[in-house]
Amino acid sequence: MPARTSLSGFPEWLPAERIVEQHILDQLRETFELHGFASIETRAVETLDDLLRKGETSKEVYLLERLQDQLQERSDSKKERTLGLHFDLTVPFARYVLDNAGELQFPFRRYQIQKVWRGERPQDGRFREFTQADIDIVGNGTLAFHHEVEIPLVILEAFSKLPIPPVTVLVNNRKIVQGFCEGIGVENVEQALRSIDKLDKIGPEGVRAEMEEFDFQAEQIDQLLKLAQISGDDQSVLNEVRALGVSNELLEEGLEELGALLAAGEKRAPHRLRAELKITRGLDYYTGTVYETELEGHKDLGSICSGGRYDSLASDGKRSYPGVGISIGVSRLVSRILAEGLATASRSVPTAVLVAVMNEESREASQDVAATLRARGIATEVSPNSQKFGKQIRYADRRGIPFVWFIGEDGAHEVKDIRSGEQQSADPQTWRPPAEDLKPTVKLGE
Amino acid sequence: MPARTSLSGFPEWLPAERIVEQHILDQLRETFELHGFASIETRAVETLDDLLRKGETSKEVYLLERLQDQLQERSDSKKERTLGLHFDLTVPFARYVLDNAGELQFPFRRYQIQKVWRGERPQDGRFREFTQADIDIVGNGTLAFHHEVEIPLVILEAFSKLPIPPVTVLVNNRKIVQGFCEGIGVENVEQALRSIDKLDKIGPEGVRAEMEEFDFQAEQIDQLLKLAQISGDDQSVLNEVRALGVSNELLEEGLEELGALLAAGEKRAPHRLRAELKITRGLDYYTGTVYETELEGHKDLGSICSGGRYDSLASDGKRSYPGVGISIGVSRLVSRILAEGLATASRSVPTAVLVAVMNEESREASQDVAATLRARGIATEVSPNSQKFGKQIRYADRRGIPFVWFIGEDGAHEVKDIRSGEQQSADPQTWRPPAEDLKPTVKLGE
Repeated sequence: MPARTSLSGFPEWLPAERIVEQHILDQLRETFELHGFASIETRAVETLDDLLRKGETSKEVYLLERLQDQLQERSDSKKERTLGLHFDLTVPFARYVLDNAGELQFPFRRYQIQKVWRGERPQDGRFREFTQADIDIVGNGTLAFHHEVEIPLVILEAFSKLPIPPVTVLVNNRKIVQGFCEGIGVENVEQALRSIDKLDKIGPEGVRAEMEEFDFQAEQIDQLLKLAQISGDDQSVLNEVRALGVSNELLEEGLEELGALLAAGEKRAPHRLRAELKITRGLDYYTGTVYETELEGHKDLGSICSGGRYDSLASDGKRSYPGVGISIGVSRLVSRILAEGLATASRSVPTAVLVAVMNEESREASQDVAATLRARGIATEVSPNSQKFGKQIRYADRRGIPFVWFIGEDGAHEVKDIRSGEQQSADPQTWRPPAEDLKPTVKLGE
Repeated sequence: MPARTSLSGFPEWLPAERIVEQHILDQLRETFELHGFASIETRAVETLDDLLRKGETSKEVYLLERLQDQLQERSDSKKERTLGLHFDLTVPFARYVLDNAGELQFPFRRYQIQKVWRGERPQDGRFREFTQADIDIVGNGTLAFHHEVEIPLVILEAFSKLPIPPVTVLVNNRKIVQGFCEGIGVENVEQALRSIDKLDKIGPEGVRAEMEEFDFQAEQIDQLLKLAQISGDDQSVLNEVRALGVSNELLEEGLEELGALLAAGEKRAPHRLRAELKITRGLDYYTGTVYETELEGHKDLGSICSGGRYDSLASDGKRSYPGVGISIGVSRLVSRILAEGLATASRSVPTAVLVAVMNEESREASQDVAATLRARGIATEVSPNSQKFGKQIRYADRRGIPFVWFIGEDGAHEVKDIRSGEQQSADPQTWRPPAEDLKPTVKLGE
């Protein structure tokens, strides 16, 4: 863990690490905006009622109390409604949509990049503050299926631009599992999901033993285990499911949706989108396609980006708002990148040029050069001191600033690339650093 | 107030309003980075001890409590240290510098743009959550004076790029007031500051009456009132002070610093930097130059950006870290801009082009166009439906999307500027929107 913070679970980054995080956030924003998602931010707090509306008591909530109320031991009746910090961006987004339904245009495409908080026990070592990046498309009353195809393609495009190993989106569809269960006469779908969820952990025989305890028939268990072991990135997946011989209308609808999704993946993100019919997480909540993701070489990290289709994000009694969305766990990803040096920043400051100062009387001439370079978009600092040039070069070197600018006693201007030592005369009105040195860059390591 | 939020004091913006805020945040970041300030973020929480270290009990603090701890009525001994949300970015920055002193390069130049929270009483109508944008330069042991000149010039450059009326930075210097008081034999400098602070509210005679109560001599009061009424943006300010005939070493040092600051202002930001010797706010805390700002036509808003020079941001017992910094109240500024329509966004979405869909069978062809345009940096959406083109054009119009792209039955491509109605054939590989339509723009209103 590169975070040097005095409170566990609240990660903080050093300047060079922050450049990696900023680069990732900038890239995500750029991709989301290229696809027409509008930015919103919601307040950090929601009422406790809203936070617990979906029965999310398992999510640890941080409650807020005003210090003054505590000091004055104010009775509860004098306090306002209890407020808590949001633990995800879905609950606040649902509330925002209801608050502003009259002002928003539907389908509403929004992205939201914010911190969230979970009141985990400190000793559990989990993040208690972290950044999420969510995209959702929400309709008013209805939402077309093709948005379920769109979301994972946007995400794959976003990930493909990040300095990280390849990402695969794993998909399943509630309709397939639900329809399949109906088709083979399974009524307790939730238990079926719970048991299948343990497939990787306890193996097929473990799943079978558990399902037998819950009185599933041997043939039902066989069929569900066969279904759960189907995976693939092309239409052959559909044939494998159909070969199991189960006939059900909802199943067929789910297969058609999955087929359309895989076809789009084959065309627009080859081999990066894979059906995994054993995925059950979220199937109790979502109503259509569900998404998880796998970072190549980092399966232990779990899904760094998950989501799905829901038929009612929010409802005001009259209207409901169906949607589809996905959420990236940015801090978890950044933390892994930094801990393993997967990507690093080329320097720890935005500065491309340090203008040296010969003596304090000539500081103004150095400031003139800096102002000229900045006006041309080149990030420039003036040396804070007028010590020997060697010391000023070390100032730049320690920060990774690539160029130092000198004004000679004769008024001649020279710029030195302190990595190569190469020095040349230069005019602040026309000189430019190479494009790759203009701003700090972030590159995937070896 | 344009914020449509169901909790007072927690502002939220609609998508078009958020574009205005984002534009301002982007511009601030760009200017700060051009001047070599590195970004950091600190966690939202600090220990209550750290929050109250400077005796800031007047700042309302939100304390955090885990819901689970409350539900289980856990005794205090089982809880960890009390945590609270930060109410500014200075306290967390000081703690960050101490935590990471061994890893940072000094002088350390950082910017920090984050939300802060204050547990104001809801009925007071103040912001309880708002965004601040801070820059600071912090030294290890020492910090040269010229950074006190640098900070307001960076800020004026930043403000000059924002779609807001002109900003003036008002400055004073603790050394002038302190030295002047010493020179005329005033010992109770703090009371002198408190009285002068009321000059605008109660007038010179009110100030005189109050100072008499505190046993200031008539001549001292005369001199302080004369000092407080001096203001100006050039060196004549120094002569006016010197004409008062007070002789003191610290006063002279303060005047030299103020003179250097005004000279730099005259050169680099003419008429935008003004000495106001009546400014006392913060003089009890800061040790050199202090800054406030005035937004032209919006004096009632108060200072939207304040700061100054401090000799010890933080101290770990052995070393102290002097610094100079300033903090912009972004939410207050954005709220005023939006409430009065000072600036508006050209559209409510990032999208420049909507690709129309003739029928669902041809959606893929529309997606191909969108992918081609996006790969060339043009934000593009595909129409969510395949209704009549008139309805698809209205979809674009309601969001302010300027261009709609059509693929005819014959496969011919045309793009229509829906503002002018002008339609022309176009190739997705080469067509570009005019530069001013590529992204939403934010312009100062009439």
